[in-house]
Amino acid sequence: MNDLVHRTRRFVRDVVLPSEPRPGGYLSDAERGRLQEAAKEHGVFAPHVPKEYGGAGLTIADWSPVFQEAGYSPIGPAALNCMAPDEGNMYLLENVATDAQKERFLRPLAEGRVRSCFAMTEPHPGAGSDPDALTTTATRVDGGWRIDGTKRFISGAEGAAFAIVMARTDDTGATMLLVDTANPGFRVGGQVHAIDRAIAGGHPYVHFDGCVVADDAVLGAVGEGFRYAQVRLGPARLTHCMRWLGLARRALDIALDRVEHRRIFGSAMKDLGLAQDLVARSVIDIETSDAIITKTANALATDPRAGSALSSVAKVHCSEAVFAVIDRAMQLCGGDGLSDALPLASFMNEVRPFRVYDGSTETHKWAIARRASRARAKAVASGTERRQDEVVEP
Amino acid sequence: MNDLVHRTRRFVRDVVLPSEPRPGGYLSDAERGRLQEAAKEHGVFAPHVPKEYGGAGLTIADWSPVFQEAGYSPIGPAALNCMAPDEGNMYLLENVATDAQKERFLRPLAEGRVRSCFAMTEPHPGAGSDPDALTTTATRVDGGWRIDGTKRFISGAEGAAFAIVMARTDDTGATMLLVDTANPGFRVGGQVHAIDRAIAGGHPYVHFDGCVVADDAVLGAVGEGFRYAQVRLGPARLTHCMRWLGLARRALDIALDRVEHRRIFGSAMKDLGLAQDLVARSVIDIETSDAIITKTANALATDPRAGSALSSVAKVHCSEAVFAVIDRAMQLCGGDGLSDALPLASFMNEVRPFRVYDGSTETHKWAIARRASRARAKAVASGTERRQDEVVEP
Amino acid sequence: MNDLVHRTRRFVRDVVLPSEPRPGGYLSDAERGRLQEAAKEHGVFAPHVPKEYGGAGLTIADWSPVFQEAGYSPIGPAALNCMAPDEGNMYLLENVATDAQKERFLRPLAEGRVRSCFAMTEPHPGAGSDPDALTTTATRVDGGWRIDGTKRFISGAEGAAFAIVMARTDDTGATMLLVDTANPGFRVGGQVHAIDRAIAGGHPYVHFDGCVVADDAVLGAVGEGFRYAQVRLGPARLTHCMRWLGLARRALDIALDRVEHRRIFGSAMKDLGLAQDLVARSVIDIETSDAIITKTANALATDPRAGSALSSVAKVHCSEAVFAVIDRAMQLCGGDGLSDALPLASFMNEVRPFRVYDGSTETHKWAIARRASRARAKAVASGTERRQDEVVEP
Amino acid sequence: MNDLVHRTRRFVRDVVLPSEPRPGGYLSDAERGRLQEAAKEHGVFAPHVPKEYGGAGLTIADWSPVFQEAGYSPIGPAALNCMAPDEGNMYLLENVATDAQKERFLRPLAEGRVRSCFAMTEPHPGAGSDPDALTTTATRVDGGWRIDGTKRFISGAEGAAFAIVMARTDDTGATMLLVDTANPGFRVGGQVHAIDRAIAGGHPYVHFDGCVVADDAVLGAVGEGFRYAQVRLGPARLTHCMRWLGLARRALDIALDRVEHRRIFGSAMKDLGLAQDLVARSVIDIETSDAIITKTANALATDPRAGSALSSVAKVHCSEAVFAVIDRAMQLCGGDGLSDALPLASFMNEVRPFRVYDGSTETHKWAIARRASRARAKAVASGTERRQDEVVEP
Repeated sequence: MNDLVHRTRRFVRDVVLPSEPRPGGYLSDAERGRLQEAAKEHGVFAPHVPKEYGGAGLTIADWSPVFQEAGYSPIGPAALNCMAPDEGNMYLLENVATDAQKERFLRPLAEGRVRSCFAMTEPHPGAGSDPDALTTTATRVDGGWRIDGTKRFISGAEGAAFAIVMARTDDTGATMLLVDTANPGFRVGGQVHAIDRAIAGGHPYVHFDGCVVADDAVLGAVGEGFRYAQVRLGPARLTHCMRWLGLARRALDIALDRVEHRRIFGSAMKDLGLAQDLVARSVIDIETSDAIITKTANALATDPRAGSALSSVAKVHCSEAVFAVIDRAMQLCGGDGLSDALPLASFMNEVRPFRVYDGSTETHKWAIARRASRARAKAVASGTERRQDEVVEP
Repeated sequence: MNDLVHRTRRFVRDVVLPSEPRPGGYLSDAERGRLQEAAKEHGVFAPHVPKEYGGAGLTIADWSPVFQEAGYSPIGPAALNCMAPDEGNMYLLENVATDAQKERFLRPLAEGRVRSCFAMTEPHPGAGSDPDALTTTATRVDGGWRIDGTKRFISGAEGAAFAIVMARTDDTGATMLLVDTANPGFRVGGQVHAIDRAIAGGHPYVHFDGCVVADDAVLGAVGEGFRYAQVRLGPARLTHCMRWLGLARRALDIALDRVEHRRIFGSAMKDLGLAQDLVARSVIDIETSDAIITKTANALATDPRAGSALSSVAKVHCSEAVFAVIDRAMQLCGGDGLSDALPLASFMNEVRPFRVYDGSTETHKWAIARRASRARAKAVASGTERRQDEVVEP
Repeated sequence: MNDLVHRTRRFVRDVVLPSEPRPGGYLSDAERGRLQEAAKEHGVFAPHVPKEYGGAGLTIADWSPVFQEAGYSPIGPAALNCMAPDEGNMYLLENVATDAQKERFLRPLAEGRVRSCFAMTEPHPGAGSDPDALTTTATRVDGGWRIDGTKRFISGAEGAAFAIVMARTDDTGATMLLVDTANPGFRVGGQVHAIDRAIAGGHPYVHFDGCVVADDAVLGAVGEGFRYAQVRLGPARLTHCMRWLGLARRALDIALDRVEHRRIFGSAMKDLGLAQDLVARSVIDIETSDAIITKTANALATDPRAGSALSSVAKVHCSEAVFAVIDRAMQLCGGDGLSDALPLASFMNEVRPFRVYDGSTETHKWAIARRASRARAKAVASGTERRQDEVVEP
Repeated sequence: MNDLVHRTRRFVRDVVLPSEPRPGGYLSDAERGRLQEAAKEHGVFAPHVPKEYGGAGLTIADWSPVFQEAGYSPIGPAALNCMAPDEGNMYLLENVATDAQKERFLRPLAEGRVRSCFAMTEPHPGAGSDPDALTTTATRVDGGWRIDGTKRFISGAEGAAFAIVMARTDDTGATMLLVDTANPGFRVGGQVHAIDRAIAGGHPYVHFDGCVVADDAVLGAVGEGFRYAQVRLGPARLTHCMRWLGLARRALDIALDRVEHRRIFGSAMKDLGLAQDLVARSVIDIETSDAIITKTANALATDPRAGSALSSVAKVHCSEAVFAVIDRAMQLCGGDGLSDALPLASFMNEVRPFRVYDGSTETHKWAIARRASRARAKAVASGTERRQDEVVEP
């Protein structure tokens, strides 16, 4: 595995970095294809994909160092075909899809021949971070299902070959369905212009108007949609952390180069304590992020339920940390950090949404607190732990 | 004065807001002209300008509420002709220029007929935040001066009618000169694409190649350039705080509207404590910013030297506070806060540079700490205060 | 007024500081009496008390600089007789009591002859920060009232001459009553050992068991207790901010002396950026605290309702700021800051409770957010403001 | 190993917690002895000590969960004989001492029969956090060494059987020596009253006045003192993190019990978002601390130099996190959190020094930044990495 980390590092630094678009620009499909071919030649393509589908077959506990190397460039994950949302979709398909579905959807996706999207979020008052508010429906029709509803912020939808769609199939349950984007009932709507640019296909609205699919479009079992969403979301949150942590390392490197060579008020910037404070806090953010990712990946590999809970902690810590590291790098680089003279300002716009996507910091904090309260109350109720808050008049 | 505050508020909300460009867009010169005419009709134009030059004649202690109202829109200050860098240039000209210079440069600027720029910052290793590193020179020639050098990040230079240029005039001193941009020795160079868009004319490089000006181009006295820079910078820092604080109020209003109407997890967002935490911290940031601006403005009005020192404190506090308020508003508005569905993401890009421009947070902290140490050491040395850090073995 | 500030400064530095007890110690009643006599001689006693009761007669807008000077020593406010809870009780009596009550209770209190307490907080599930949970009752009896209930954390109760008691007088209202502590129905209970030591009389439980008082014990009107609590609490919160801000200035002075004289790693500490960062953040905390206190005091003087709302903002900002300043001073003074070699560790224990007393930071944030939401919703509903959060599909 | 963790947990909760002194109190030597006997009976004594000296023989990579369980009580580490400074001294002796020294010093220490101290820190201008300033000397005399100098903040010195002393042995080097406290040249001086109470023997001054020791008092090699200090300090820093993290878990449990049972403003506190925010941030602090400890312990086990560098990161993160967790628990518990009704206020006083001891947060940040700058500069100089901060005029 260490060899793959090293090769990925060299590939990203030697091949990918020189191919980056100007700050604020997009990676073209053609360039993406060219980079993916190069990644295959360098033996670093699709590290997370099972070998039978053309990948390196790493398990989740070994992803972090490779994904961090990929994320050192905003386009690195696309070059390695481990970018969001496709990487999470591959994981979900691998774990839930039938063999036939895997051949039809997973294989071309894993090989980089198509892109995909994950259609869950809805316009208000539908489901944003709150899955209970799901309004898109899948209704039983002869030989299949008819999907109706509107989704929003569907990353990668423009140009995707298929969508994994979350729809309500009865009063209490939800089901995931695989929908070919060529289906006449599927339509990409207005494009939401978000401040991040690295995801091919943007974040548009998607409309399902009497979109009929066959029975074999159901992913896994009917009514299990929310459970599968958890299967996908825990790891997907964590791979975001891994990739963005790589970008934080990049930002710190740029800042370290700057403080090495820039003089101000008669001193090298690297010797000024106020610069050292920014550097040190960024190192601490990076190391603790790396450590909590490792802990969470190990948990996901051995106890997915505990790992998924811990992924909330990792997501909050890493998303805030990564943003802070880039923000500090901008401070250290002055005017250049605020313009496209350096890529830092565009990095900030890339990572800012991560504090909101996949559950905002505040939503995760709410979930973390509730889990902590419940676990403690349960331990006290069971007698394993003794209540410690009682006081009496002295 | 309260009446002017109220009229400005109504003008900005009723006339300026509907004229705002789409997020990420620029205010055209034509639209700017139209809005300035409207501002004159509403009696809210140029609040900071002496009445003899067409303004409302407010003194600095009364600027804050008006400038905050102007800043409620990113284009509000341009509509009122109190935007950077022109507002700071007007202040400098008013305080230092000769009557002839005022007629030639201040009057058309104050009336909104031309724009200007302030050419101080230089490419590395010249003067960024560190004035001692000034490399642009003004050399005595027959009947005037020849200016040579390169400046960078000269906000508003593209399209400006004149520049106030800081140049080294001998080994230890610097001088300010007024340069018509039509001067053949003046050239606007490459445009630095910074993440803020509200300043007309961008932040380009500016080149002076044998740029000859007459004796009457000297602003104030030869060798007094750094002192005048301080005259300008204290108030200019503070008016930035005032304007951006208005934008922070806008961001909070947008977020308050969102939490009022949005429901999540079965509750109105406004009733969720994690949203309340973000709102409360923003209110505290806004109120403390307003208070420190008032304190600093009063100091600048009565003791410019103390006021200038305090303006470092105000600048650090307000720039960090304003950024945080907008950042929290983005969190509260979810995906809409990250895209051009709402203006918040563009606000973030507008205000982010304020933590660097006019002396970064870190540079000001360094200055603040040094001043505190010196003042304390002086008080102890004089016997007014007694040293309190000495310890002995018990 | 400035003269009084100056005299208070000299009195505190020259007379009070040399009389401070060792860190962790208490001010004895005898020493307190001696210092109050000295304060009278220096003409700095009771700055906030009307002249007819022996004070300097300053109005609230002028208290801050004097109270800050007093607070430069933890025992300074006691020396000047402007310490909590007595100072707040004096304010309440002055504003609500009858002339007879003023003679009987305010005059000896203002002259420093007795101490008092304010009996509002109750043990759980009674009223802590939440006034609706009040369980102590005052029941009508012939010619007066009978008070029953238990209070807790009643600062200064041990040794107080009288208590202002909040009791429920019917289903929805509460009433304040003046109770002589010699009343046989009044009993001081167990002493709560809190980490702060400066308040004479500690924070004990207080029991009312069939405590009968005459009709003239009612302070103000029956049923107006909660309203009077607000009358007292707004200013009382703010005077806490003033006094503790003085102590923060003291802590910073000690730290400045230390960084001036201590060398580490070959440099004077004052030249090390990581120390400068701590100093600068403390200066910013102090200046912004001073500014928000001024703003709030002016509001209380002109619009008590707005001032009381703003006092929540001031309380949160100042209590957190003061704690942070002292905490940073401890970091700068190393081992000496952690022991009684310097008074900083005892200062930390004195101010830590301020983030909880008089409504915790979190309780005030909740109140601040609710007020902001209501004010905005009202402005939108009235048409003065337009809702700004609506989005549509592009 | 998991079994030992579980047994330690039960021992600490069932045996140690009921034996805790009142908040602010000390653990008596007798009680400490009794608890150590109980720990031996429960098979949880000295988990970090090699089996040949009576311990469980765990290696450093396995210490964290056990030490965290021990640290759940402030006296837990003393009960298990893994408290500071003895635990670090045992580690140092195990790694550097001769067999004879181990028998004489390590064995009785490991068995809990004696206590020890580590005499490095000196009064100003000697060595605090800065080893270069060492002024205590060890001079060659016939058959041994004569030690002269004064140390300060020597934790555990009162009542210790021996001291490990750092002394300058020539112009550039330092040497460690083992000194019996019965040596007539050794004298415990004034006791520094620090805010932490858990360390038996306090933090006194220690004086060496012509303290002569034999040649076999030298620990390891002459001149290697600073290197051995690093051998000790990396792990010692990390075991502090482990122990205090256990106390942070305790504080969070107390707070969770409180928010479970307390109602305020009509809601259970656990359902109030502002309480949830405090709980969630504490969970995040605890989980990330646990993760960075694991990462650092693994590094220390495989690459002590890298582990030692990373221990600076762990120390800063954990010391700040642990303090913050306890501070938040105090907020959640209101008045009870500020008094000895609950142990939280005493916990705060116990952990506060950890942000200063063993190198302050600021000192470690300085070291972290310097290491990051050097590593990056070296990589760029070697050609492995390319410099990324250069900009040109567009």
